[in-house]
Amino acid sequence: MKALRLHAYGQAPSIEDITEPKVTGPWDVIVDVGAAGLCRTDLHIIEGQWEPIQHPHLPYTLGHENAGWVREVGNAVSTVSVGDTVIMHPITSCGLCPACRIGQDSHCESSTFPGINADGGMAQQLLTNARAVVKLDPSLQPRDIAALADAGLTAYHAVRKAADQLFPGAHAVVIGAGGLGHIGIQALVAITSAEITVIDRSEEALELAKSLGAHNTVLAVDDDTVASQVQDITGGGAHVVFDYVGEHGTELLSPRLLRNRGSQYVIGYGGAVSIPTIEIISREINVIGNLVGTYNDLVELMTLTAQGRVKLHTRAYPLDAALDAIDDLDHGRLLGRGILIP
Amino acid sequence: MKALRLHAYGQAPSIEDITEPKVTGPWDVIVDVGAAGLCRTDLHIIEGQWEPIQHPHLPYTLGHENAGWVREVGNAVSTVSVGDTVIMHPITSCGLCPACRIGQDSHCESSTFPGINADGGMAQQLLTNARAVVKLDPSLQPRDIAALADAGLTAYHAVRKAADQLFPGAHAVVIGAGGLGHIGIQALVAITSAEITVIDRSEEALELAKSLGAHNTVLAVDDDTVASQVQDITGGGAHVVFDYVGEHGTELLSPRLLRNRGSQYVIGYGGAVSIPTIEIISREINVIGNLVGTYNDLVELMTLTAQGRVKLHTRAYPLDAALDAIDDLDHGRLLGRGILIP
Amino acid sequence: MKALRLHAYGQAPSIEDITEPKVTGPWDVIVDVGAAGLCRTDLHIIEGQWEPIQHPHLPYTLGHENAGWVREVGNAVSTVSVGDTVIMHPITSCGLCPACRIGQDSHCESSTFPGINADGGMAQQLLTNARAVVKLDPSLQPRDIAALADAGLTAYHAVRKAADQLFPGAHAVVIGAGGLGHIGIQALVAITSAEITVIDRSEEALELAKSLGAHNTVLAVDDDTVASQVQDITGGGAHVVFDYVGEHGTELLSPRLLRNRGSQYVIGYGGAVSIPTIEIISREINVIGNLVGTYNDLVELMTLTAQGRVKLHTRAYPLDAALDAIDDLDHGRLLGRGILIP
Amino acid sequence: MKALRLHAYGQAPSIEDITEPKVTGPWDVIVDVGAAGLCRTDLHIIEGQWEPIQHPHLPYTLGHENAGWVREVGNAVSTVSVGDTVIMHPITSCGLCPACRIGQDSHCESSTFPGINADGGMAQQLLTNARAVVKLDPSLQPRDIAALADAGLTAYHAVRKAADQLFPGAHAVVIGAGGLGHIGIQALVAITSAEITVIDRSEEALELAKSLGAHNTVLAVDDDTVASQVQDITGGGAHVVFDYVGEHGTELLSPRLLRNRGSQYVIGYGGAVSIPTIEIISREINVIGNLVGTYNDLVELMTLTAQGRVKLHTRAYPLDAALDAIDDLDHGRLLGRGILIP
Repeated sequence: MKALRLHAYGQAPSIEDITEPKVTGPWDVIVDVGAAGLCRTDLHIIEGQWEPIQHPHLPYTLGHENAGWVREVGNAVSTVSVGDTVIMHPITSCGLCPACRIGQDSHCESSTFPGINADGGMAQQLLTNARAVVKLDPSLQPRDIAALADAGLTAYHAVRKAADQLFPGAHAVVIGAGGLGHIGIQALVAITSAEITVIDRSEEALELAKSLGAHNTVLAVDDDTVASQVQDITGGGAHVVFDYVGEHGTELLSPRLLRNRGSQYVIGYGGAVSIPTIEIISREINVIGNLVGTYNDLVELMTLTAQGRVKLHTRAYPLDAALDAIDDLDHGRLLGRGILIP
Repeated sequence: MKALRLHAYGQAPSIEDITEPKVTGPWDVIVDVGAAGLCRTDLHIIEGQWEPIQHPHLPYTLGHENAGWVREVGNAVSTVSVGDTVIMHPITSCGLCPACRIGQDSHCESSTFPGINADGGMAQQLLTNARAVVKLDPSLQPRDIAALADAGLTAYHAVRKAADQLFPGAHAVVIGAGGLGHIGIQALVAITSAEITVIDRSEEALELAKSLGAHNTVLAVDDDTVASQVQDITGGGAHVVFDYVGEHGTELLSPRLLRNRGSQYVIGYGGAVSIPTIEIISREINVIGNLVGTYNDLVELMTLTAQGRVKLHTRAYPLDAALDAIDDLDHGRLLGRGILIP
Repeated sequence: MKALRLHAYGQAPSIEDITEPKVTGPWDVIVDVGAAGLCRTDLHIIEGQWEPIQHPHLPYTLGHENAGWVREVGNAVSTVSVGDTVIMHPITSCGLCPACRIGQDSHCESSTFPGINADGGMAQQLLTNARAVVKLDPSLQPRDIAALADAGLTAYHAVRKAADQLFPGAHAVVIGAGGLGHIGIQALVAITSAEITVIDRSEEALELAKSLGAHNTVLAVDDDTVASQVQDITGGGAHVVFDYVGEHGTELLSPRLLRNRGSQYVIGYGGAVSIPTIEIISREINVIGNLVGTYNDLVELMTLTAQGRVKLHTRAYPLDAALDAIDDLDHGRLLGRGILIP
Repeated sequence: MKALRLHAYGQAPSIEDITEPKVTGPWDVIVDVGAAGLCRTDLHIIEGQWEPIQHPHLPYTLGHENAGWVREVGNAVSTVSVGDTVIMHPITSCGLCPACRIGQDSHCESSTFPGINADGGMAQQLLTNARAVVKLDPSLQPRDIAALADAGLTAYHAVRKAADQLFPGAHAVVIGAGGLGHIGIQALVAITSAEITVIDRSEEALELAKSLGAHNTVLAVDDDTVASQVQDITGGGAHVVFDYVGEHGTELLSPRLLRNRGSQYVIGYGGAVSIPTIEIISREINVIGNLVGTYNDLVELMTLTAQGRVKLHTRAYPLDAALDAIDDLDHGRLLGRGILIP
């Protein structure tokens, strides 16, 4: 079958023919890939940034945001059948460790992460397992939802964790209305009743935010101006700040946007949080980490998607044109998420 | 009446005669002070460190940890009567603002903080209000419990907030077994079922910790050794770290002691938390601020005290010897908490 | 001033001139009533049903759903000023008892309930207190929102308590789309992301439910049919059933509509819940009581109202026509809520 | 191997030789049974009471409270090894259905319940699965803990669910200090800080309750007396009532023992809860169902057991004497739990 394989860091991956995966374990599931999302993490993988963290064996197949149709299942799998439309939770979890026992799939002690440390979905077929597949409403098309498997899930997870603080009168501030943020805004509209304020450096992104339901927008000129505007809009600071950027200073700006007892949800990464303990204490504020999402988060996100309440902007490429897609992404020519169709 | 008054920063306060407080508002309560706790914050106030934060009008009376007997009440007060034994929540809250409506007294928008920004309890009488007084079991003596009003409350509040994560099999790590920490340990034993590990630089403090119910102790030699020992004891890190120091590096050590999804509770202050966002995210860890405590926390702490489950080590001085007590505290000659008896 | 006074049970109340209320306590607030809601509870009061529960001193003024403008305040009131538009929480709570300390105003140990056990708002002026008044956005008109003070608050409170179980994929079933239920449906749409199914005996009520956002409706023909339809629609039963009727059999039907681990929220009353313990246990289901609502619930409901997300259908009468309104209500001629305008 | 088999309802089961179980599925685990608890449910099974609910295929092997040592595992099992000491969660859950995804093992959609609807543990070997086995500290002996697998787990589960309402000053009332209740009391002491009041008809059971840490005891003479005494002891009613009996009137007495906003936890069964909706509402009380417990509950209970904080009173019989044990249980000659040793 065809697959997009990475042979060496710093070199372009290549489309080639490889052996198809086989079912060997009782819970294995092989999927005919319908669509695989392309994201900045793929660029970072090619650059070698993930080598020290996940050290995959090269060559391997990229693609960590996948959806398709079940092709074959192991003998213990009863929850999906051949032909079912599925989206894949990014982690193939074990179902037995303490994290799995409470549904915290991202912290499974015995997992693989296809596309990151095992063969991924930029191929005609993908090997995953029964714990990872979410059976979809047949009305959902893989190409429309594949990118929700990781980016969308991450955006949703943070909103879902904060939702019990976001009732009428609460203020949610979103930093960054890009790939993750624009899903986060839709999730806030769908599952909370907070007033939503979005900060971005791009007027166009703020326009998108408004069209998705944001109540207020703030152009990110300089930190003092932003902090002052947010304090005014929120009547003293946000209950929750969702930092979908996490670098270039947003991680330092975030605490300034909170009211007493507010929480900074860290989702994007690259920078470092730094807050004097006297400030943490005297304002009783919190910093909350967020990692991908749970299987149940993905099920809920798919429910919202089937209801038409969450939508991705995408551009499809055939798998054979993967290098064009990567090039477009790398050079800022790709509006919306790139989707590869095998 | 006699009172310990601060006239100028950097100068010793003095005992002098001042006019007694009067009931003027409907919710006012005047208390015959039975005991006032002396703490390091008093030293910091004298040094002038709190001037920029609370800017009290000098001269004023020190003493923010107070207990005694009700002397007189305003005409709307029905919850305590003359003669009742009471301990004072440090904040005189309003009962009407959003924070008060949900019991978050420390964040009241319209309060005073006697001993910090208004006349305190190192005097024969103290003016407080009906929202601040906790009626005590007559078996409790002001001199035994006054220091629980602020230090004890702060230590308890953090444990109480974390208690729903501290069931059998969970690991709590306490940094610092001093004035706050030794109450925190007792609170952990009383209201959680976690396994408790205490870190301190003093062997003596660790002995105390063990006698109070800590299951494990770690001598704070160097950070790498501590981190390694805690990882071993906890089988991969703590669910919650209570940092009762918050400076001199404990605030940077704390995240290294956590397991995935764990939380660093910041209680002590002076330093600055600094964590790369990639670490916050990849481990999904949290930093939780803690400020004094709620009125209900104080009620619960008094229940534990009446049951004999929380005890303070104290040394009493007559109010006239306040300067001796301050001098002893400043020079490390004061074991346990100093208590002034008017 | 004019007031609608009840002199004897079983007799029509009468409009008469009485002395205006006076500010005597520090937290008293006198309001120029702008509108007072009329509800079935008023009919029950006149019949004498509430005598054994609240035993008010006759004669007294009816009206427990009130909104208007502040006329005069006690000397300790700083949160509202003369002229402010306000809606009244039905309970004048004390702010000092354990229930008030955690915001559970309805369980205050030292309260009055104007219109139920003290003079109410079917008059030109009403005496209430600072803990009960919610300052409103000036865009809200008393006549449009007065009936939210009790009926709306009760409907909202139950939804708010259940909201943390009502995320995408969860099923909420509402029994009764009448005075309370039609607010409950709007609250579900506004603050949850559950799929909503409404049961009612009236086709017209079901039409209203759909127009307010219900996803499914079930005509209440007989219990077996309803139970079967609800099981189908919800894929095995509701996560939460909101029983806004609570009598005539809905209280017995409700458990049949639940899935395992589901909860029956009892809001309406009159009947009796009866469930074998084997059923409670083997399905691990719950029965949850709900009483009026908290002050914070009312604040949140007013936020939704100002946003246009919750609306009442009303019909206004001048206070002088109160007996006509009561007669219309009693004989089923009153569509929507009756509102008296002094 | 030897096994205690039930051939027909109403007839004594018999010890006989049957074929040993075999590993056929990837997650199968076969255990050398070390001990199997005998409980009243076994008597009810023999009587035929469970036939309509679970309709097992006769003949089959009894025994639903089992502990032992791993003998053989399926090829996908990595969490236990041959020779490990284990206790069995009563349910062999699937790990894939919505209930399993959130750790609600008792509500698994695709499970077996050995000893109830499949061959149980009153035999030399037991077939279970990887999701059901809890690896134990080697210091724990099967004969000492087997009965915690079901009765203990059920008692613990209810306390664990209520634990977040049981802090200092809260009142827990336990009805029934027998097989389940005496574990419930130990769990309350270990993981909550509530004041505990125990009600029983037996003076001896109340003595046991006191020795386990109950603060107050009430002899169950008549309901009015009990209700009055509990109201006095608790200062207005319990925050939580744990009804470990659930029949013979305790299920009707329970609501009378609650304060406003309190909850009746139903654990025992046989009777029927019956409460007027006006009472549910005006007091805002709840009825909470409880079913066995989760896998994590069992892990926590084993932690407490290893710490010596929970202990069972037991009497051991060889498996060959099973009929004697059953006879002793049936005729009230069995103090503590009967344990069969194969």
